Amino acid sequence: MKIIAIDSSGLVASAAIVENDVLIGEYNVQYKKTHSQTLLPMLDALAKMVELDLDTVDAIALAKGPGSFTGLRIGSATAKGLGLAMGKPLVEIPTLDGLACNLYGTDKLVCPMMDARRNQVYTGVYEYVKTGQSPVSYQLKSLVPQCAVPVAQIAEILNGYGREVILLGDGIPVYTKALQELLTVPYGFAPAHVNRQRAAAFGRLAMQYIQEGKIVSADSHAPEYLRLSQAEREKNEKGHGNISQGNGSR
Amino acid sequence: MKIIAIDSSGLVASAAIVENDVLIGEYNVQYKKTHSQTLLPMLDALAKMVELDLDTVDAIALAKGPGSFTGLRIGSATAKGLGLAMGKPLVEIPTLDGLACNLYGTDKLVCPMMDARRNQVYTGVYEYVKTGQSPVSYQLKSLVPQCAVPVAQIAEILNGYGREVILLGDGIPVYTKALQELLTVPYGFAPAHVNRQRAAAFGRLAMQYIQEGKIVSADSHAPEYLRLSQAEREKNEKGHGNISQGNGSR
Repeated sequence: MKIIAIDSSGLVASAAIVENDVLIGEYNVQYKKTHSQTLLPMLDALAKMVELDLDTVDAIALAKGPGSFTGLRIGSATAKGLGLAMGKPLVEIPTLDGLACNLYGTDKLVCPMMDARRNQVYTGVYEYVKTGQSPVSYQLKSLVPQCAVPVAQIAEILNGYGREVILLGDGIPVYTKALQELLTVPYGFAPAHVNRQRAAAFGRLAMQYIQEGKIVSADSHAPEYLRLSQAEREKNEKGHGNISQGNGSR
Repeated sequence: MKIIAIDSSGLVASAAIVENDVLIGEYNVQYKKTHSQTLLPMLDALAKMVELDLDTVDAIALAKGPGSFTGLRIGSATAKGLGLAMGKPLVEIPTLDGLACNLYGTDKLVCPMMDARRNQVYTGVYEYVKTGQSPVSYQLKSLVPQCAVPVAQIAEILNGYGREVILLGDGIPVYTKALQELLTVPYGFAPAHVNRQRAAAFGRLAMQYIQEGKIVSADSHAPEYLRLSQAEREKNEKGHGNISQGNGSR
């Protein structure tokens, strides 16, 4: 089973091609360019580097959200375009689940965290559950499904588990001080090579989703923002204001 | 601290740029091209994508070996060339240590394994040791430093530990059946996104090495093959035969 995976939900733009147990290629960039400048050129370069025959691809996986509104739309537009042109289904991976996959097989809790602005984080709490016997494998289980909450709330939830937790994601640098003050359980921060989104992780998770029948048509896919956009929020606040300035939300 | 990291020791060609806690970019390819076709174009593409100013780079990290003889020479030549041209030191990372870094923070043993041909594997046994208190971090510790041994020997060593182990690396598909027969401890195989070399992991480990003063000049660097090359072996077997056909060893 061969998957093209993309992620542009946060600060990272990432593209990967995964075939069963083999990561054929991956290209990640965390830089101040917008994802519209990076994502497609990266996927194109990668596809050329590995001489990818698009007919051999089974599905396109993407981070469905939450995340940056603009980033999610770039990812969704890219995946929809590819899916429609190639006649392939999409696999929608919750962003925080994909991020939690970076720490395969850890016995600690995993808490990915993205800056959602407005004093909130997109987050969730995960653990790995052992399945099978030699070979053992580890399946990601969400204890708290992805959500948008104040950092104090997720810290309280983590404290309630009483277990050591590894934190990762682009929310960490923003909320390091708050977390240090709020957390009473042992915690650590994932290092550079495993602390941000990787399309390879989304691609790997997608293979599991496909086996569970969790695919959608490119046509029916829509990103999951988890919150109202800034424009929608302002419209609601004002009553029936006219949305004319686009969406400046993250 | 900003590091360029490269790896071409095995089936993967990989380049990364890591700055402290941030993976600025990474490009990995596991494809049937030779590393001389992939490694430098990948690094070049990555450097352009993130508008890398070479003057801001502190060191060049590389997988020093073991691994494919040709692959190691391509990596060494690339790193030496960059180091000499840029006037920057090199950081030599043992290949198996870099590979073991993929499974950050696991409580299981980690056993990376590369096919060394001639019924041997390049391997080692690692565990993560907890350091610090909130933030906790995990430091890689080698229980068995990297070595070239028959697969039966490493299986016996692992059985002796009596602990669950996660196996990874390009030696796994070659020796899956043998490992299944030989291992008496619980074992599992790392999935696609964490089962092969990533330059990002080497770059991250390099930052620790630099803090420990473990750098070398580009001039003095040489790869560590761990075994004699095929040509050297044949020369020794024949007495003082003439090496004229180059080195066909992996």
